[in-house]
Parts: sequence; structure tokens; C-alpha cells
Amino acid sequence: MLRYLTAGESHGASLVAVLEGMPAGLKIAKERIDRELKRRMQGYGRGDRMRIESDKATILSGLRKDETIGSPITLIIENRDSSIANLQQVLGPRPGHADLAGGQKYDRADLRDILERSSARETAARVGVGAICKTFLSEFDIDILSHVVVLGGIEAHTRNLTFSQIRKDASGSDLNCADKAAAKLMRAGIDKARKSGDTLGGIFEIIATGLPPGLGSHVQHDRKLDAGLAAALMSIQSAKGVEIGAGFKAAIRHGSRVHDEIFYLKSKGFFRKTNNAGGIEGGISNGEPITIRVAVKPISTLRNPLKSVNIKTKQTQKASVERSDVCVVPAAGVVGEAVTAIELAGAMLEKFGGDSIKETLRNYNGYLKQLKSY
Amino acid sequence: MLRYLTAGESHGASLVAVLEGMPAGLKIAKERIDRELKRRMQGYGRGDRMRIESDKATILSGLRKDETIGSPITLIIENRDSSIANLQQVLGPRPGHADLAGGQKYDRADLRDILERSSARETAARVGVGAICKTFLSEFDIDILSHVVVLGGIEAHTRNLTFSQIRKDASGSDLNCADKAAAKLMRAGIDKARKSGDTLGGIFEIIATGLPPGLGSHVQHDRKLDAGLAAALMSIQSAKGVEIGAGFKAAIRHGSRVHDEIFYLKSKGFFRKTNNAGGIEGGISNGEPITIRVAVKPISTLRNPLKSVNIKTKQTQKASVERSDVCVVPAAGVVGEAVTAIELAGAMLEKFGGDSIKETLRNYNGYLKQLKSY
Amino acid sequence: MLRYLTAGESHGASLVAVLEGMPAGLKIAKERIDRELKRRMQGYGRGDRMRIESDKATILSGLRKDETIGSPITLIIENRDSSIANLQQVLGPRPGHADLAGGQKYDRADLRDILERSSARETAARVGVGAICKTFLSEFDIDILSHVVVLGGIEAHTRNLTFSQIRKDASGSDLNCADKAAAKLMRAGIDKARKSGDTLGGIFEIIATGLPPGLGSHVQHDRKLDAGLAAALMSIQSAKGVEIGAGFKAAIRHGSRVHDEIFYLKSKGFFRKTNNAGGIEGGISNGEPITIRVAVKPISTLRNPLKSVNIKTKQTQKASVERSDVCVVPAAGVVGEAVTAIELAGAMLEKFGGDSIKETLRNYNGYLKQLKSY
Amino acid sequence: MLRYLTAGESHGASLVAVLEGMPAGLKIAKERIDRELKRRMQGYGRGDRMRIESDKATILSGLRKDETIGSPITLIIENRDSSIANLQQVLGPRPGHADLAGGQKYDRADLRDILERSSARETAARVGVGAICKTFLSEFDIDILSHVVVLGGIEAHTRNLTFSQIRKDASGSDLNCADKAAAKLMRAGIDKARKSGDTLGGIFEIIATGLPPGLGSHVQHDRKLDAGLAAALMSIQSAKGVEIGAGFKAAIRHGSRVHDEIFYLKSKGFFRKTNNAGGIEGGISNGEPITIRVAVKPISTLRNPLKSVNIKTKQTQKASVERSDVCVVPAAGVVGEAVTAIELAGAMLEKFGGDSIKETLRNYNGYLKQLKSY
Repeated sequence: MLRYLTAGESHGASLVAVLEGMPAGLKIAKERIDRELKRRMQGYGRGDRMRIESDKATILSGLRKDETIGSPITLIIENRDSSIANLQQVLGPRPGHADLAGGQKYDRADLRDILERSSARETAARVGVGAICKTFLSEFDIDILSHVVVLGGIEAHTRNLTFSQIRKDASGSDLNCADKAAAKLMRAGIDKARKSGDTLGGIFEIIATGLPPGLGSHVQHDRKLDAGLAAALMSIQSAKGVEIGAGFKAAIRHGSRVHDEIFYLKSKGFFRKTNNAGGIEGGISNGEPITIRVAVKPISTLRNPLKSVNIKTKQTQKASVERSDVCVVPAAGVVGEAVTAIELAGAMLEKFGGDSIKETLRNYNGYLKQLKSY
Repeated sequence: MLRYLTAGESHGASLVAVLEGMPAGLKIAKERIDRELKRRMQGYGRGDRMRIESDKATILSGLRKDETIGSPITLIIENRDSSIANLQQVLGPRPGHADLAGGQKYDRADLRDILERSSARETAARVGVGAICKTFLSEFDIDILSHVVVLGGIEAHTRNLTFSQIRKDASGSDLNCADKAAAKLMRAGIDKARKSGDTLGGIFEIIATGLPPGLGSHVQHDRKLDAGLAAALMSIQSAKGVEIGAGFKAAIRHGSRVHDEIFYLKSKGFFRKTNNAGGIEGGISNGEPITIRVAVKPISTLRNPLKSVNIKTKQTQKASVERSDVCVVPAAGVVGEAVTAIELAGAMLEKFGGDSIKETLRNYNGYLKQLKSY
Repeated sequence: MLRYLTAGESHGASLVAVLEGMPAGLKIAKERIDRELKRRMQGYGRGDRMRIESDKATILSGLRKDETIGSPITLIIENRDSSIANLQQVLGPRPGHADLAGGQKYDRADLRDILERSSARETAARVGVGAICKTFLSEFDIDILSHVVVLGGIEAHTRNLTFSQIRKDASGSDLNCADKAAAKLMRAGIDKARKSGDTLGGIFEIIATGLPPGLGSHVQHDRKLDAGLAAALMSIQSAKGVEIGAGFKAAIRHGSRVHDEIFYLKSKGFFRKTNNAGGIEGGISNGEPITIRVAVKPISTLRNPLKSVNIKTKQTQKASVERSDVCVVPAAGVVGEAVTAIELAGAMLEKFGGDSIKETLRNYNGYLKQLKSY
Repeated sequence: MLRYLTAGESHGASLVAVLEGMPAGLKIAKERIDRELKRRMQGYGRGDRMRIESDKATILSGLRKDETIGSPITLIIENRDSSIANLQQVLGPRPGHADLAGGQKYDRADLRDILERSSARETAARVGVGAICKTFLSEFDIDILSHVVVLGGIEAHTRNLTFSQIRKDASGSDLNCADKAAAKLMRAGIDKARKSGDTLGGIFEIIATGLPPGLGSHVQHDRKLDAGLAAALMSIQSAKGVEIGAGFKAAIRHGSRVHDEIFYLKSKGFFRKTNNAGGIEGGISNGEPITIRVAVKPISTLRNPLKSVNIKTKQTQKASVERSDVCVVPAAGVVGEAVTAIELAGAMLEKFGGDSIKETLRNYNGYLKQLKSY
């Protein structure tokens, strides 16, 4: 059973994550965590602060000599600015943010008490946890990437690219986009939005390869792999939509053009030539790559702020302004990779058990062998 | 804490649901449950069997004199055909279904052992649970509807209709669609698909009204209301996409055209003039109607079946054929209402506590009063 | 992940249990379930009704051809008397029962609404679930027994008996007691208590053998095997105390006389010559038999009832009288076996994973081999 | 929903706790946390190191201006010695500890990887969390104490003392024992055990007052308040037994002498004159003080170590020696208070809900009023 909690406010002392259930004997490279943390801060369209700053994780527990020992792993990511106690009161809730509803729920007179936690800064903790889960998944040759497929209304054309082409091309792009021509137009859109004090959203895609068939289960509503992934991805700040495989497009096609016919070759077992299912059928991974697309709304803090109401005086006022990113879709994709990795690592451990990486691998290999004679 | 499990195979003795955590003192009308069960079976495009059959729930526990007493509620829905043991072996997995991946996971030589449980027949149990949760929500004047907005590629135009207009028009339609003209075209599409042995998918929309601000929470990934709803809706058989509010459309607009500005009137408190957020900001309900759209793929069993492989002989063969619906989008919407009701009832109980409906209502009313002076 | 819910009132239609997470491919003998249900009803000291009646389970889901298929298993145990709606109001709460506190919590004017669920009749459902879990554990040669070690103040002398001697002697006793001489005195005590309209409690012991080292974990408070077992056993109606191994006696001895020294033989690996730890150290099974003792208070319904107060009139009155058992300690032991089996089956599945019994066994055997070279 | 995780090794950087679900608006005094941490380190019989050292908590998240804001609270307790990476290998598992079983489970060649986490040092984190939960409970006038009732076989006589007398007398004692004469004998026992390189255990008692009736529930095995408390207390390092109220003594008395008769006075509502139930009937708090006794085995590290086996060479050797406490029963009691506070705070929040302390209190007061007219 893999579980985790994050904690921390954006201007508090630090962000914190505790991850439990990782088997013992897994080598963890701190650089890998820091690399993912850095990726989360990148992307054309971020404020200047972001591009300069660089988060680093400190591991407080759970490792000895860089290796997991079965006990819970604590990550700390210090905040550069930890002046939370003294920061100015916020009375003008931002449309699109948790500010107002959170203030009402928790009965707070200062909305800063809400936004400090609801801020996407929290996702740094999840990216840290995700980096550990990716390390775990690497042991099984499971690999995950994200790339931007729509930004500010511009669509990237990547349907014909392989996993490794997308990785190569996207990682060379400051928008994590594998279509160079589209990226150029996206950048122009960002520049324009910045000038008008506006913000942009988009869509990122997650692809996970190397998964065995049999993760998740059809037997109960809350054990379906797609349900868990949908929750994980929708829980990302700014996410407003999640689709698996062909997703909303599957809804408008005929069945004969949606379902992925089944083939068999002795050398590779059962396989498909299409993947409209996005690697999940009946709530269970089917061995094909898992593909998910996530809609990210434009960020809620506009430099040219929207209309709001002062929660104290009830007078109309502009919404408060907290920071100056124009677009965070590439970063949201990095967070998407992380939460996908966490979800998949959990599904692997639920199916294969194991308290040492050696044991989990042994169980996994036994299953692969079983599949061969299925 | 509200929780539930369902059980039962589609040709087993019966479907079963156990729901726990419902406060005591709630009057339950069995007719209401049966009405929802019937709604789930309706819709132009269902096989003949469906339209004739009519599920009925038996309540085995949890009520006394038609009133909840705090203890777990068991619903049983008998299957007309309970010949599971004798039904013919299935060796040709259907593309799009859990058949193959489930067979591999659970190591079953007969895929019937999988499809009997993965079948959408299971959703009858969830609809029964949902009917009880709707009854609970009624006490707080929370109301939920679903309607079909896309079917077979035909889009219904309903954006300008009110909640009650949609309910009225959709409930008068055999496609649960509030746009008469669109419904006519949808029906034609279904007829055509039936002739070619094909199937159709679509999109349904859920609208929930009467919710207070403050359900769900921004403080942890797994407590966000939208994450929970996304999981619940994605767990419906055939669902491939979920979007909240403007969803994927929010991803292509500018921030200034997405976020819902905040207004205040003494008489009604804080409110919005738009609802692109779909009633949820920062993982918390904001008091506006919750709107969700769900993509439903065409059903996986085609009368004119797709290519598959015999799992025993490994020879190519046609996929097995289990039943003859062409389109189940309206029914999926009814299931969508149910799982939404369960999720929202759980969120209400988490926030307001209470072991009797009187207590939960008292706590709720105290909160409404608190909101007035916020 | 193994989980289960029970439902049902003692005079409702039936008791219900849904168990989820059992791997596929496990043969279930309904006779085994019924045999355990019958054992729960036995024991000198039960009312006449009990000794005559005989519960039978009906399996509504989760099996096909008597074999698990991975989907949730539903057990139904019909009640002979299902007149719950018409049974007479209860206004005199019984000291020792949930009646009063439950009535206050759930705000019920008729305490029958509480006692129908709090009744130990519910444990029949748990015994049914336990029988399935015992079947699962048998695959790993894990065996569980209970026997009565104290009843009405009479202590049985069994410290020098082996597991199989205790099983043999206890199962031949109508008090499930392995000490014949003590049992005779116990019976006399019961007869005397019956005459005076009083009731008797006692202590039963659980012994589980064949467990591997490594179940449970030291890494988090809620993953300790002893914590889970303590909760499971304390949740039995009438249980007031739980001790593992030497338990309260360990608290009064010196450390040098409590801790079990460690030995090693190539043929058997690490082992102990004593077992004061009761098979659990640091929240983890250590490979020795797990031994637990549970204190069972005398049942709360006395034929010669205690003082109580009418909840409507607030006048002093005698507590209500529901049934006529004098002593249920042997039956409580049978329930103890069941909840222990459920807990241990869950711990096995958490460690070894697996969706088919073949897979779980393969993983388990891999671990045993690993232990040999530890 | 209150939940928490702890992390940290005894010679790692620090101990960590994340607590989630605490309502907003609760004032937290860091001194109160530190005072509890200090209490955990006290007690005649501890090693010298313990009596000198003094843990201090740092709060990394969840508070602003010393007040909770609804978001998760992180506590860090730094270790004075954080040389975990370099500490010497441990090959001689200590009988009574997690060393061997943990090493086998997690497949560790160096048992230090286990004992660093299984060490009772972890309980500092729980005491920190408990201090916050005690602060929460104070708002409802719920109070919890622990005191030592047996140590090294010496029994304290405290049955006739009131809650406040016990608190006063125990807090003045370096053994947290309210019976001065007994404490003197206990100290002598400790001195003697120290001389012989041995260790002592004992029994502590928890008393919680001010609880309303209605916490926990009879409706499901895992919602019983006594089951939750049993798990929490049994999860304490060294705990081997838990009894509620009269506990094991209830098992040997007649029913007429065990169950607490029910009385009523308009001024105080329903009440009891005895409390053998220990405040819990049918898994529900009944409004009387909750009393629990916990058996603590002698600590497992003996200065005069027991026989063990080198896990590498398989040669007989003495168990490793980690530290030099003789007796930790008073400290275990402090941990017992903490985990009891966490469990009760969780039960309060489950019943009363609320996201601000104002809301939880309002709901609670509404319930108290309801009880008055019951």
C-alpha cells in the first residue's frame, strides 16, 4: 500500500512530503529528484522569478546510504520566502481560485490563509514524490513522459511520433512541445497574452509505456485504474478535464472505429495495432501505452485582474494579484507525470506486493512468465 | 464517512450493494429506488430485453418502518437469468472490454469469469445506492439531473436552458435529451448504426444545484471535490473522459474569458454571473451549480463483431457477442447522477457530520447562517 | 487489499457480508462455511433456541462453479425471525449494551433500532467471511484455533499442550475447552448462574500457526500486525481486553525472562524456544505461532435484569430482556478465529499480492526461498 | 477525517509528523507540544542521556500566527545524533525487537536499517501530534491523563482517587505514579534491575473525561471506538495488552456485578454509579470516563544481553546493545495519552464535522442540547 501526504504553504518554511510503502533496497539519486523539481519550474511563460529559482529537495528520512529501507520517506523543499506570518492580508478573492470558497469553508478573515496552501507551489512536493516513484518504475522498465499538445488554442501535431521522438523533441523545447512549428506560434500567443495582462491554458498529454496488463481492477468502482488516474490528474491545480485514450473523440465515433482489435503473435503475445483505449479497458491496464490528456485552464491570477468583492467591506474591487506567470501548461505536465507515476507505482505494489525491490521484481517476473503461457 | 461496496455478476443470483454511513431518521421510498432503476434501463437504442425488463430493489437491512436507523443498508436486485454456472465459455475477448486484460490478471481460462462482473449490469447496484443518496440530498434541497448533450456525433443545444427546463424536456425524451430536434437526428443515427451492426457513444452532462460553498478541500490531493467526482464518473463502464465546467474549452480560452468574476448582493451573498468553473474552484464547491460532462465510448459488444483471438487456440476469431444494445448514453447519464449523488452525499457528511438527519440538518443550517455573516 | 462490510439486523430479513479482494481460483466449500456458522451457535450455556437453530449461508456472488473469480463475494444468512418492523418497542436500555449510547447518538425513540444491529447476531456474518479467509490461509498451511481458557473464573490448564492436542481436546468439548476437569467445573458454574438469572464471561485464546515471518510492519502505527489484530478482536461484541503472547504477565516479569532468545539451525532457520512475544515482535510476525487472549465480559442481557431507566418516562425500570444465553465465551472464540483469519489473510495479501491463488502462492514460495538464504 | 503519518529514524536527521484534518482557528501553543515531548523523556529508570536531552518541535506548516488554518500541520523534531549513515552495522538481533523479523521482511543485511525506525524514538512524533489533538479536545473540556499502576510487579493503589487527585499526585512523581508508597518500592525495583543489567515493564492507565456519549459506532466492526483505541494503544512500542474498563477482571465476574446500572437525574441526565465498562458500551462512548489499561513489556535491549544469532555468520552471539534504559513505563503512558487523544479527536470530528473550531463547537453544542431533551 503506497500512500503519501504533502504539507506546506507557499510562503511558509517549506514544502513537505511523506511517502510510505516504497519497498526497501531502491537506490534513490537526489539529483533525479532535483532534476524533476527544476523541470517543474521551467517553461516559456513563467514569471522571471521562476526561471531563476531552483528548488532542491532535502531527504529527512527513509533512506540510508541513498537506499530505501522500507520506512517512510520525507522530502523537504525549502521556500526562499518564508514570510507567511507577515505577508499582507488578502481581501479580494481571485475568480478561479480557492480563495473565496476556501475562506467561507474554513471561516478565515484573511484569504491568505487559504491561498498559501491552495497555490500550485504545493505541486513541488508531489513532483518530489513522483521522482521517487519514477525511480521505482524504472526497475520495471516503465517510463512516463508528458508533452504539451495544445497551448493558447494552438494544437501540436504529434500523432505520428514515437514515444522516444516525442521525448527527444519535447525535452528540447522550452514549452515541452514536440512540434517545433506549433511551439513557435504558442510562444507568440504567450507574448501577446503577457502584453494584455492575460493568461493562457492548454492541454498536456501523458504517455506511460512498459506497463504489464493487469493493473487496476474491474471488480469495484474504486479499484479501476482509470478512475484512480482521473482523480490524480484532476487534483492538479488548474486541471478541468481528463480523457483516457481517444477520450471525448471516442464519444463521437462508431464502435467499429473505436475499439482496438486484438491480435496475437507468439513472439509478443496479445497486442493491438491501435490504441484508442489509451491502454486501459474495463478499468485494467491492457499492456499498451497508457495515454491521458489533461485540460489545464489559464492560471487564475491575472496581472490585469478580474472583478471581485472585498470580503470585509463587500465593496467591488479588483481581485488580488499574487504572481506573474502567463502560462504553466508545461509545468502542469511535469506534475501530471508525477501523479501518474505515483498512481502506477501504487497499482504495481498492490498487484505484486513485496517489501524489497528484489521481492517485487521477483513477483513481477513470475507474472510475466505466467502471461507467456496464458 | 459514507462508503459502499457493490457485488454481483450479471447472470449470478443478484446484484448487491451495501451502503454505510447514512444518518438515521431518513425516510426511504422504495418506489424512488425502483424508479431510478427503471430509468437506467430506458433509452432509445437499448436492446428489446432491456426495455421490457424492470429491475426492482429489495432492501435487506438498514431500514425499519421505511426509515434509516444508522446501520448499513443492503440492496438486492435479482437477476432474471441466474444461469452463470452453465453459461457457455467465452474465449474470444471483446476489444474495448475488460475480457482479455481481466483474464490475464486473474488467470481465468474462461473469460465469462471476467465479463460477468465487468458488465455494466453492475451499475444497477450503484443506481440503487445513488437513489438513497439523492433522497438524503433532497433534505438539503440539493438536486441532480443528467441529460444527453452529444450522441453519435449529434450535438444538442441546451446552453440557454434553465435547470428545470432541461429536466422537463429531457425527461420527456426517450434519449434523455432536452433538444427535440437533435434527439430526432440522434434516433436516426441509432437506427442506422443498428442496421450496420455498429454502436454509438456520446456525452452526457450532470448538473447539481443547491450545493453550499465549502464541500471538498484544497488542502490535500485526495480531498479535492473535483478529483473525487472525476474518479466516480470515470469509474462508470464506458466512460473515457470527464470535464468540469468549461473543461477542455477552458483550455483554449484566455484567462480573462474563463474565470467567473465575483459579485455580491446582500440578499444573495456572493455570486457569479458565469459558471465556467462548473461550481468548483480549488477543489472546493463554490455554491454555483456543479456541471460535469462525461464522454461515453460506444459499447464494446458489436453485433457485427471486431477481430479478436481465441485465448485457447490463439487463432484469429470474431469477438464474442453478449447482447444487442446499440447505444447506452442516456443510461450512462442516469448512472452518472447516481455516482455524483454518492460523492456529494459523502462530501456533505464529511463537512457536516451528524448521525441523525436532524443533526446533520442542524449543523448544515448553522453553517448557512455563518455564511450569511461572512 | 482485502476489505469487507457486514450488514443486517438480528430480526431483519438476513445478515449480509461482502468480502472483496480474495484472489481468483480458490475453491470454496459451502459446507465449510456452514460448519463454522454452526460452531458459532454451539456451547454449553447458550439458550435452547441457539442449540437447535442452524445458520446456513447462501453465496450470492463472487463464485462460479464453487471457485472464486476475483469479484466480491456476498454471503447471506437468513434470519428465522424477520419480524423487525413489528417487534415491540424497547425503552429500558440494558446496562453493558449499546442501547442507551446508541439511542442518544442516532436519536432513536425506540432502542430496538439500535440493539437489532449491535446484537452479537452480527458476528454470524463475520464468521462466514472468516471461513473463506481460513480456506485461503489453508493454501499456505496456516491454521487457526480458539479454545476457552477461563470461564466463570475457572482456569483451564493447557500450557503444556500442543496445537493439535488443544484442537483435538477442545473440539470434543461442549465448551471448546481442552481441559476436561476444568470444563466440568465451568459447566457447574454455568448451571448455577442460570439458576440465579445471571451470566458469565471468560477468556478465550487464539493460536495461529504456519505463519511466515514478515507480516505487518514496524514502519507506521497503523501497519503493525498486533494493532490490527487488537482492533479486530476488540471489535467483537463483549470483548473488553486483548493480550498478545504473555500479555499482562509480560508486564510484571523481568526483561530477561520475557524476551524470546534467538536460535538458528540450518534445517529450520531462525527459531525460538519460548514464545512470550506471541509470535509478534515490533509489529511484525516472527514466524512463531501467534497467540492472543481475549477477555469476554458476561453477556449484558440478564434474565434477572439490572436497574435501568425508561428513556421516555425517565422512570426507573428493569432493563429489557432480549434472550436467554448464560455464557457465550466458546462462541466468542469462534468469532475470534474468524476475525483473526480475516486480519491474517489481509496481511498475507498485502505482502504477497496476487490476483489468482496461483500467483499469490508463487510469490509466497519465492519469499520462503529468499528466507532460506537470509 | 483526521489522519496522520510519522516518519524518521532514531539517528536520522529528524522525526517528522504530518497531521491533517484539524479544523482552522485553533490556537496552538508550541510550549504545550514541547512540554509533552519533555514528559515523554522523563521517568525514573531512563538512561542518563534521556534525562538531560530535551526534544523541541519545529512547526513547518499548517499554522499562521500560531493558529491552524485548515492545512496539514508538519512537526519536525531534530535528532541530536544524526549519524545514521555511519553508525556501526548491527548483526545480532535483539529478542523482543523488530530486528530479526524486520530484517527478513525487508531483506536487510544490516539490522540497523530496521531498528532505526522501529525504535521507540518514533513515539516523539506521535506525542507531538497528540499534543495538538489535546489542544483541540480542550476546547470541548475533554481531558486525558495517564498514570503508572503497576511497575516491576508492584501495584499502585489508586482506585479510590479522583481524576484530579491522580493527576496531581502522579505529576509530582518521577514515575508518574499516584501512590507514593508504591512508587518507592518501584524505584527500588528499578535500582535492582539496573544493577543486574535487566529491564522492567508495567501497566499504565489512561483516563479520559468530559466525553459526550455517542463517539464511535456499533454498526460496523471497524467503527467501534474500543477497537480503534485498542489498535492505537497496541501500536505503541512494547505494548502487549490492552483492556477497557474492568477488562480481564470483567471476564471472571458475574454479569450482575459487571454491567453498570443506569440512573437518571434531571440535572445531569443519564448516569452510572459504577464504570466497569470503562466508558464504552457496544463500541460507543457512553459519557462516563474512558479508562484503559495497557501492559508494557520490559524493554528489549538489556545491558546484560540475551542470546542471539549473528545473521551473517549464523553463529550464536549476544544480542546487540543499543541504549541503557531500565524502564520506560511512565514514558509509554505519555505516548498512550497522545494516541488516545488522536483517536478521540478523530472520533469527535467524524461525529461533529466542521472546518473551523467555531463550526465544530457549534455542532457539538447543538448535540449537547439535543441530548438534554432525549
